Amino acid sequence: MTMNEFVIFEGGITAPEGFKAGGIHCGIKRKSLDLAIVYTVKRAFAAAVVTSNLVKAAPIGLCKSHLKNPVIQAIVVNSGNANCCTGKEGEVWARKMAFRTAEEMGVEMENVLVCSTGTIGKPLPIELIEDGIKALKGKISEKGGHDAAEAILTTDLRTKEIAVRFSTSDGRTVTIGGMAKGSGMIDPSMATMLAFLSTDAVCSPAYIEECLKEAVAESFNCITVDGDKSTNDMVVLLANGDDQSHRIEPGSEDDKLFRKGLNFVCEDLARKIAADGEGASKLVEIHVTGAANIDDAKKAAHSVANSNLLKVALHGCSPNWGRIMAALGASGVSQLYPEKIDIFMNGMMVAKNGQAGPANEDEARNKLDVKEIRIDIDLKIGEGYSRFYTCDLTKGYIDINL
Amino acid sequence: MTMNEFVIFEGGITAPEGFKAGGIHCGIKRKSLDLAIVYTVKRAFAAAVVTSNLVKAAPIGLCKSHLKNPVIQAIVVNSGNANCCTGKEGEVWARKMAFRTAEEMGVEMENVLVCSTGTIGKPLPIELIEDGIKALKGKISEKGGHDAAEAILTTDLRTKEIAVRFSTSDGRTVTIGGMAKGSGMIDPSMATMLAFLSTDAVCSPAYIEECLKEAVAESFNCITVDGDKSTNDMVVLLANGDDQSHRIEPGSEDDKLFRKGLNFVCEDLARKIAADGEGASKLVEIHVTGAANIDDAKKAAHSVANSNLLKVALHGCSPNWGRIMAALGASGVSQLYPEKIDIFMNGMMVAKNGQAGPANEDEARNKLDVKEIRIDIDLKIGEGYSRFYTCDLTKGYIDINL
Repeated sequence: MTMNEFVIFEGGITAPEGFKAGGIHCGIKRKSLDLAIVYTVKRAFAAAVVTSNLVKAAPIGLCKSHLKNPVIQAIVVNSGNANCCTGKEGEVWARKMAFRTAEEMGVEMENVLVCSTGTIGKPLPIELIEDGIKALKGKISEKGGHDAAEAILTTDLRTKEIAVRFSTSDGRTVTIGGMAKGSGMIDPSMATMLAFLSTDAVCSPAYIEECLKEAVAESFNCITVDGDKSTNDMVVLLANGDDQSHRIEPGSEDDKLFRKGLNFVCEDLARKIAADGEGASKLVEIHVTGAANIDDAKKAAHSVANSNLLKVALHGCSPNWGRIMAALGASGVSQLYPEKIDIFMNGMMVAKNGQAGPANEDEARNKLDVKEIRIDIDLKIGEGYSRFYTCDLTKGYIDINL
Repeated sequence: MTMNEFVIFEGGITAPEGFKAGGIHCGIKRKSLDLAIVYTVKRAFAAAVVTSNLVKAAPIGLCKSHLKNPVIQAIVVNSGNANCCTGKEGEVWARKMAFRTAEEMGVEMENVLVCSTGTIGKPLPIELIEDGIKALKGKISEKGGHDAAEAILTTDLRTKEIAVRFSTSDGRTVTIGGMAKGSGMIDPSMATMLAFLSTDAVCSPAYIEECLKEAVAESFNCITVDGDKSTNDMVVLLANGDDQSHRIEPGSEDDKLFRKGLNFVCEDLARKIAADGEGASKLVEIHVTGAANIDDAKKAAHSVANSNLLKVALHGCSPNWGRIMAALGASGVSQLYPEKIDIFMNGMMVAKNGQAGPANEDEARNKLDVKEIRIDIDLKIGEGYSRFYTCDLTKGYIDINL
């Protein structure tokens, strides 16, 4: 993707005009920041994608109800506790979080979204959170995006933020910003991940919904850390531009730019989530080409990305392409000709026509001893293509989840 | 299952009358036994179930072709090399293994089955194997079952053998014996596992096929170690009884006993495979009751059994039932009411109606610090039941697969 039309810069959720945020430590976790608020001065149109897990955390239900009218002015997020499997009380706690945020920020309760991430099945310390919201109010500013990005983390080691800017055909500047968290229970169809996206573009609700779905399909729905699907995940996009004379019209040049920018932001955050997967020491990118169709390509890439055996091999710098063959064969694709498959690891041909390729094993081990591994798989059947991000599987994953 | 009608005893593939076996070191592996032959004095009817992986090892194709007429007199098995992704040469090597075995044992080539297990994509050292078959011939006896059970192992730490005996209604003795190997790339629908079953019962080919399918569905197809599906798996049952006046008739009392015995043997071997999963320190048994139907029960149990997060938690003696809830929600079942779900771990109620149960966490940790963990999940919807075996996920798994 050429990004000449864009400026990519260090920024996050507060990069677009009119967005403020903040994060503090309210006491759910021992030390780290654990409560964030994102706020937009003007009410924004919102679009959201939520977890497909049938076990959904209480805040997810509340958000769905508030999004029936997709106008949002604040998002409150706590980490350290998922408020999931917490029964009727959990629903009350989620409503209290929305109510208190509305009160403190001077907005309507139904214009507030609530997200929680952390351990499942523990009572939410709602008093700490309510006090926290009060204390956080004074810290919310255009400069508070990084604190917010820190406060939403769970086992993540790094904050995940990005911002892009471009000029519209009529010379205005549009900014798209975002922040996200991973990092275990990550699989397509929304895993334990939250991503918040903001823009000052002028968009209709239907338009941002369409753009978000498109961007999520190729980013957050193409990552896996451990194949476990979470109960709390959500991606939200807020668009607070209100000058209707500058609305982005589908089919226009601005439309193309906006989608490209949003896709870039989502893909960047998704990559960062995979790279910071629990225990990860390597980012792994899997590209499947030549599948019978896109659905097959996704199945194949997902199956390879979820192979524990392969992920341990990559951790050990082992070019074990046999494990890729096994994962492809078990992926559920509609068509597969093992004797046609070519596999490359960081450019080395490790398998040719389904058999050992010319790559030298010792050399391959050296070339896999890096932070980023790219696997290219050509099925040589049709035009289907898909790209997945994942990470290696290490003892760190076990330590974190004991 | 009451097993009063059976004698369960230490024995294996050679326990039934007329079966001989042996195992030697032929040089594929560094030191351990790596080549086995199972032989029946009288030709036997055979039934087999093979891997569903679309990438199939060369021997699988040969076996399928030889099983068109399901009469078998010898099985040759090598470990240390899967003879998979080895192209046309691989097919030649598999045929050579059958040919040499037929020659040495004095049987017809089309009455020989060939199995390979080990690394994918490496050339099979066929000369070593051919020399091995010749050397092995003299070691094949009624007492060689244990050596054979050892020679088929890969990363397994323990041999897996079992035998049962019962009396038929007309006072004859029928024996069923078996041996199997695991222990990575294990998932339902046949994983990296081989199981060989023998009986001296008098059975029709159609009858043993039906019995085997039934037994496999509830045993080898209900285990998972890492969710990776292998390219080489096979379960074979040989029945060498030939006195047609004593044939087991479907619907008879003997039929019920035979099926029960075969199911027991398969379940025992499946449990042993799960318990000896790569790096495993604990056997985990997952029972799902109250699902809308059996299909849902299997999906639910499989999803829980495959959760890396849960398996690490169990390794750490953590009663983290939230990870079970998440796995249930993501399992793809047709119906689920999170607020109804009860979960027990080794008898302790860790979740009640989808929320934290009365079990004390410290006590629970103590009770999970054992070699076998049983998880009971009641979905309270219908009558669907399923039981899966798996193991915990430890750093040992990573060490083995680096």
